[in-house]
Amino acid sequence: MTPEEFRTAGYALIDWIAEHRSTVDQRPVRSEVAPGAVAGALPSAPPAGTDSFGHVMEDLRSIVVPGMFEMQHPMHFGWFPANAELSSILGDLASSGLSSVGISWESAPALTEVEEVVCDWMRQLVGLSEDWVGTITDTASTGCLTAMLVARERASGLSQNGGGLQGVKSPLVVYSTTQAHSSVAKAALLAGYGWDNIVMVDTDPETFAMDAGHLAKCMDADLSAGKTPAVVVAAVGTTGTTAIDPVGAVVEVAAVRGVWVHVDAAMAGSAMLVPECRHLWEGVEGADSISWNPHKWMGTILDCSLLYVRDETQLQSVMSTNPSYLRSTADGTVTQYRDWGIPLGRRFRALKLWFHLRLDGVESIRTRIRRDLANARWFAEQVAATPGWAVLAPVLLQTVCVSHTPVVDGTALQGRDLDAHTLRWAKAINDSGLAFVSPSMLDGQWMVRVSVGVLGTEREHLVRLWQQMQRVILPTVS
Amino acid sequence: MTPEEFRTAGYALIDWIAEHRSTVDQRPVRSEVAPGAVAGALPSAPPAGTDSFGHVMEDLRSIVVPGMFEMQHPMHFGWFPANAELSSILGDLASSGLSSVGISWESAPALTEVEEVVCDWMRQLVGLSEDWVGTITDTASTGCLTAMLVARERASGLSQNGGGLQGVKSPLVVYSTTQAHSSVAKAALLAGYGWDNIVMVDTDPETFAMDAGHLAKCMDADLSAGKTPAVVVAAVGTTGTTAIDPVGAVVEVAAVRGVWVHVDAAMAGSAMLVPECRHLWEGVEGADSISWNPHKWMGTILDCSLLYVRDETQLQSVMSTNPSYLRSTADGTVTQYRDWGIPLGRRFRALKLWFHLRLDGVESIRTRIRRDLANARWFAEQVAATPGWAVLAPVLLQTVCVSHTPVVDGTALQGRDLDAHTLRWAKAINDSGLAFVSPSMLDGQWMVRVSVGVLGTEREHLVRLWQQMQRVILPTVS
Repeated sequence: MTPEEFRTAGYALIDWIAEHRSTVDQRPVRSEVAPGAVAGALPSAPPAGTDSFGHVMEDLRSIVVPGMFEMQHPMHFGWFPANAELSSILGDLASSGLSSVGISWESAPALTEVEEVVCDWMRQLVGLSEDWVGTITDTASTGCLTAMLVARERASGLSQNGGGLQGVKSPLVVYSTTQAHSSVAKAALLAGYGWDNIVMVDTDPETFAMDAGHLAKCMDADLSAGKTPAVVVAAVGTTGTTAIDPVGAVVEVAAVRGVWVHVDAAMAGSAMLVPECRHLWEGVEGADSISWNPHKWMGTILDCSLLYVRDETQLQSVMSTNPSYLRSTADGTVTQYRDWGIPLGRRFRALKLWFHLRLDGVESIRTRIRRDLANARWFAEQVAATPGWAVLAPVLLQTVCVSHTPVVDGTALQGRDLDAHTLRWAKAINDSGLAFVSPSMLDGQWMVRVSVGVLGTEREHLVRLWQQMQRVILPTVS
Repeated sequence: MTPEEFRTAGYALIDWIAEHRSTVDQRPVRSEVAPGAVAGALPSAPPAGTDSFGHVMEDLRSIVVPGMFEMQHPMHFGWFPANAELSSILGDLASSGLSSVGISWESAPALTEVEEVVCDWMRQLVGLSEDWVGTITDTASTGCLTAMLVARERASGLSQNGGGLQGVKSPLVVYSTTQAHSSVAKAALLAGYGWDNIVMVDTDPETFAMDAGHLAKCMDADLSAGKTPAVVVAAVGTTGTTAIDPVGAVVEVAAVRGVWVHVDAAMAGSAMLVPECRHLWEGVEGADSISWNPHKWMGTILDCSLLYVRDETQLQSVMSTNPSYLRSTADGTVTQYRDWGIPLGRRFRALKLWFHLRLDGVESIRTRIRRDLANARWFAEQVAATPGWAVLAPVLLQTVCVSHTPVVDGTALQGRDLDAHTLRWAKAINDSGLAFVSPSMLDGQWMVRVSVGVLGTEREHLVRLWQQMQRVILPTVS
């Protein structure tokens, strides 16, 4: 494709994106395509010739778009927001335009140094001290795996340089809770710890936060049994209920025992942009690593997850490679991000943060986050004030955990019947295409998460959701 | 940013990219910025207010661009090509425009199914049988780590579900060569095998390819010693010399011993688009996993690395998670790519392959690859035919390994003096900004890699490079 063809097609694509975004609320939130329908609409053999840009866009419109869940829809209250500010899309396009690849500082000095500067900006914006240095990874799953690997190597005296994990006698133990994100256990398993060495620490029955006292007991019991506590993951905003583990207390327990503390603030990191939320991760300065995702609530388009550590030499001692073909005279004086994580090659991801912060300004992001916090509180109040409905967990951020318990023949529904009821009304909402909520398990029972925070979600959308929720349960309750 | 503001800024950015690409050969290949210069030109505090798009673009031009290595420059012969076809940039922009996140099939059915279809197209285009299924990862480093993890779990009977790697008695062993990419040893270390359990198999002194006979001996010696051979990585195109390990022979040795074979074809995968190259990985059908990078020679913009396996249930048994909030009625009938790799969330990366293949057509890509193969052969002929110069390894793909040995006072330079000479003339070329080559070690001695294959590199550019190489050694030789 020539630059001139690119220009013409690029204009058309920019127009299409502007149009697509402007009309997002006119499409169903959830795609209604059947499994296999999109694949079935595409030829099974690769294209032999070339296609016009117009044809490709036609297929994008008629085959791909109907198969997309509209993450940017203001009535999307599922999972967590995955916001994509248009300014950050431009930053990502600029990155593509530069068409660079970071495999060493020399291969793209600006890619490395803008990442350094922007990670430091983000550090300042969430109120972390100068002790922290950051890097961009694709997702918090990768950030958590990185922390698990570094913690494994710290606890085992760099076993990777000798006999590996098999040569380590004392079992290394990971601490988390049942409320933590699925990526935590996955990372522990991938890092080789083994399921038997993952300890699920008790959580508070009301707040679903880790019980630091129980953490201490678990660690001490393991130490007495000859095991080695290696790493604890403190969740700041769990996926189920946005529960906040007590970071300060966790750090206090872990630090004296030499245990790595990883703070998984994938969701709640964005909240730390507003100072009034920072008490939620008080004590974070004593942790060893933190990951959080601008690509969630903050709105820098995926993939943009930040990983901060207090001591980057710990990352380097585990991740470093130095093949001859990547050496240059700048070595030793510059940052080599390949030694901070798993992949060698990296995109210029810092540009999407750079564009987002500069074009939108952090104050507009803060205003939006405060709007969402207020909207979630308002929504929780409506639910709590209505007979039959309940809010099941503290609303510390932007997610409201909701249940509705109908009374049938004078008896409140429970157990499997209640589950069936819950899944039925959640399905009715989701099937309508007018809104989307995520059913999720809490204490062995299904409930519904209403996760607020899509860029375009205003109070009116929550009003509409609340009306809809009350409407869909009517047939059951009558 | 409103859709209207996005439209205006987007047009300007598209214009800038078209212009930037058209003028790539008017800038130096390698950036001449000093370490810290880019960071120093940016404010150390985050922006307090908002900036105009014009200001951001000004900084992009004046601060970022001078700090970029021009990967798309036709005189870039370093490392490997990292091509970024403009058509694939449009595909990536379309992905950003859809602003979706794949965390489950339900969260983006089209993202999942287009990835399935396009991975199958790519399978067909490189001549793999229907036994293979593929997925897109960020880099081959991640693909290799995934293979190491799955192989570890296969060899240990899914130790992650019990006591982890520490509970496995017999040491698990990884086989590779000193010629393999740095990511192979790194992946083995991260997967917990340990340095002592990485066996560097002998390579042929002429071809630098793995000696399959020696591989068999190493495996049998390890088996006799009570160890468990777990995985062998066969490189199809090493980074140093594009050496090709004998995949068929490696598979024959490994298969009877139940050892996982991972084929690292990060670079050479693109060559398999042309049928006449496929003999280079003969026997690949017997391997267990293959990774290769369309984001290298083929030209689909980073990050776009393909990972193929013959049995996806092996991936799933190691990578699967199924939290309640990600369940849907489609489960069991659809592909959940989160269970095929490390990250949970994924971008719609298949679109860049889809746009690239449809808009440019595979035949134009094949023509270009054949051009590069011929150019590399031509270049090697010039070098080989010129006194003092030598080609140090077979030119099987597009990389030519070159040395120049001056004769001083009747004696050919060797050892450190020869290294100093080599690094001096390579530096003279790279410092000129007119071309870039990668010095690299081979058999303990520095040599220079001339890696052909940038989109815009024609015969004339190789003519110019060859002239330049001969010119820069003149002062030393006279």
